[in-house]
Amino acid sequence: MKIESVDFYYLSMPIIRDIGDGSQDVLLVRVQAGADVGWGECEASPLVSIAALVAPMSHSACKPVLASVLGQRLDDVPDIRRIGDLVRANSLDLLQADHTLSGIDIALWDLLGKRLNVPVYQLLGDDVAVPKIPYASQLFGDDPYQTHERAVATRNAGFMAAKFGWGPFGQTDVATDAGHVRAAREGLGDDAALLVDAGTVWGEDIERAAAVLPVLEECRVTWLEEPFVSGATRAYQRLARRSASVRLAAGEGSHNAHMARNLIDADALGYIQIDAGRIGGITPARDVAIYARDRDVTYVNHAFTSHLALSASLQPFAGSTRDVICEYPVDATPLARAITQNHIERDDAGLIRIPDRPGLGMTLDLAAAKSYLVDAEIRVGNALLYRTPELAD
Amino acid sequence: MKIESVDFYYLSMPIIRDIGDGSQDVLLVRVQAGADVGWGECEASPLVSIAALVAPMSHSACKPVLASVLGQRLDDVPDIRRIGDLVRANSLDLLQADHTLSGIDIALWDLLGKRLNVPVYQLLGDDVAVPKIPYASQLFGDDPYQTHERAVATRNAGFMAAKFGWGPFGQTDVATDAGHVRAAREGLGDDAALLVDAGTVWGEDIERAAAVLPVLEECRVTWLEEPFVSGATRAYQRLARRSASVRLAAGEGSHNAHMARNLIDADALGYIQIDAGRIGGITPARDVAIYARDRDVTYVNHAFTSHLALSASLQPFAGSTRDVICEYPVDATPLARAITQNHIERDDAGLIRIPDRPGLGMTLDLAAAKSYLVDAEIRVGNALLYRTPELAD
Repeated sequence: MKIESVDFYYLSMPIIRDIGDGSQDVLLVRVQAGADVGWGECEASPLVSIAALVAPMSHSACKPVLASVLGQRLDDVPDIRRIGDLVRANSLDLLQADHTLSGIDIALWDLLGKRLNVPVYQLLGDDVAVPKIPYASQLFGDDPYQTHERAVATRNAGFMAAKFGWGPFGQTDVATDAGHVRAAREGLGDDAALLVDAGTVWGEDIERAAAVLPVLEECRVTWLEEPFVSGATRAYQRLARRSASVRLAAGEGSHNAHMARNLIDADALGYIQIDAGRIGGITPARDVAIYARDRDVTYVNHAFTSHLALSASLQPFAGSTRDVICEYPVDATPLARAITQNHIERDDAGLIRIPDRPGLGMTLDLAAAKSYLVDAEIRVGNALLYRTPELAD
Repeated sequence: MKIESVDFYYLSMPIIRDIGDGSQDVLLVRVQAGADVGWGECEASPLVSIAALVAPMSHSACKPVLASVLGQRLDDVPDIRRIGDLVRANSLDLLQADHTLSGIDIALWDLLGKRLNVPVYQLLGDDVAVPKIPYASQLFGDDPYQTHERAVATRNAGFMAAKFGWGPFGQTDVATDAGHVRAAREGLGDDAALLVDAGTVWGEDIERAAAVLPVLEECRVTWLEEPFVSGATRAYQRLARRSASVRLAAGEGSHNAHMARNLIDADALGYIQIDAGRIGGITPARDVAIYARDRDVTYVNHAFTSHLALSASLQPFAGSTRDVICEYPVDATPLARAITQNHIERDDAGLIRIPDRPGLGMTLDLAAAKSYLVDAEIRVGNALLYRTPELAD
């Protein structure tokens, strides 16, 4: 079968707020080959990833992503890696290409799973999908009182783990941070796992990050996520050496498997967090999951948008019995919730499972998605390079 | 002074060929603050970098680059770093943002230099610009005969150093590669420095790369550039250990200073190559130059387009007496040559110098540039986000 079409759909909430909620827009990807259709999703900046799909060639190593995908054979699993390698080589100098490829790679896995009538995780080599412990992923409140309220709500909703991030955390002084962390722990109760996400707020300021370690220890925080920007490997190493029980987590910014492996090799992380919608799709995410497993670093998905993206993010470590905690968005926008008919819900034990259905196991709600569809148009010279296509199955 | 306007101009040759010549298009950047204007250039995929300038906000850490630049104060050197930090924080999840920022940062240095009436390298803290030995940067021929011809032409043109890259090199077998390298050495003569650029052709295949080391040693090649993709740090380490006299060079793919520093820290490189048009501009490039100097790694500019970009690429290591070799495009397109009135030419000793004039020292030829200007337009919903602006001084 040849890949006959690759369509990108930019969906957005009517109003985008200036907060750390990544579910306010979505870039949905549809790929068709023969009678089969697969769906995927790219994380971050729909317009820019669309531009990378269709941009005019600049030179032999700076081609639009579409040129390396359209018309390619898609018969079996190795074809997906071959197509990804082709994109990485032909778009070497196109920085955004990895994000654009991500949604395509995800859609290719979905398509192949549907055609072969097996879930993606089985195509990846895992026999069964192990139930995961979802952590409720949410923003810190504007003040400790609001953080406390959110933590209580999370506990009452039955979550065994919760992550608080962004918002005011790390923006002012350590005392403010401590107030939020204590409020979160108190609201959650003693039993639940508490995770803290600093959202790269400290750049590479090791002292500032180290200053919150005592309150994190006091509140038995499992991990401190992204105290520094992704590339600040040495800062991660130094902070890790100063921490007693709190482990470091990072990796969501990785836009290829090399970046994630280099972070793992730095011997600084307890947890490597991968967004399949950024790293180039499920293929490199799976590579990282296996690499991490062999090096005693726990793999965790990064997912903050739709349940289509959530399913994609879970596939790479579905069968792992040692990587059991997973990110689970609880504060996502109506848009993120609306675009799939089915959802990945917690069972009676509070665990989640990938749907045991072909491909990613998600059924899109195209009628609902349509109401969020944004008209976009890109012209260069006399050529119309992109116009929002019809959204249909 | 406040930054009042930021304009991006997409220039292109009428026909883009599928070859490794990165000078076939140019993204020119104009920044205005008060009475002053500065010019810069972004490397790689003009349309995508324009999209990153103007894309709608996705969330608080995924804003268009323009939002962090327009209206900012620009009074002195520290403002440039502050603006760059702002872009990196506000566009954290926008992968392409580093490329977009690059041209803006370069334009800000140019602007400030003109206002203060000093060359950029003096603003950076260097008193004098040390003359550099330019290496003629060009593609391998289609066959060893053509490579030989090009090498002879380079020698006859008086270059003391030459780099050959891309084309057929590494694409087939080691014997073919050897033919090209020997042809290049023979054509250049015994005296000139010969550099070889593999253009990441071997992914992370260490054995394939190691197989060319003997002929590189035999032909006294100074460095082997980018045998692997940028992130494959361990592959670089392993190959470096197997090489006797040939040093490794890499880094042009770095889109922030962290990536370059991590490569330097890996203890694998003899040369770190930085493209100011990709790494985020002159500011992070200067950081890397200083970092490399302290660790006995030689800093080299990466530049393959206009002499505006060439001047920008030379500023970060202008004053260094130990980093004396520099990339110098000789096969650039008419477009790349046309957009500046003055050029950085070799003197009687075959050396080049940054123009001793304010800012980047280059005078644009806007009339010539205009003939290459591409009309582009980006619409999202009812908003016209971008339309090629008037090109004027």
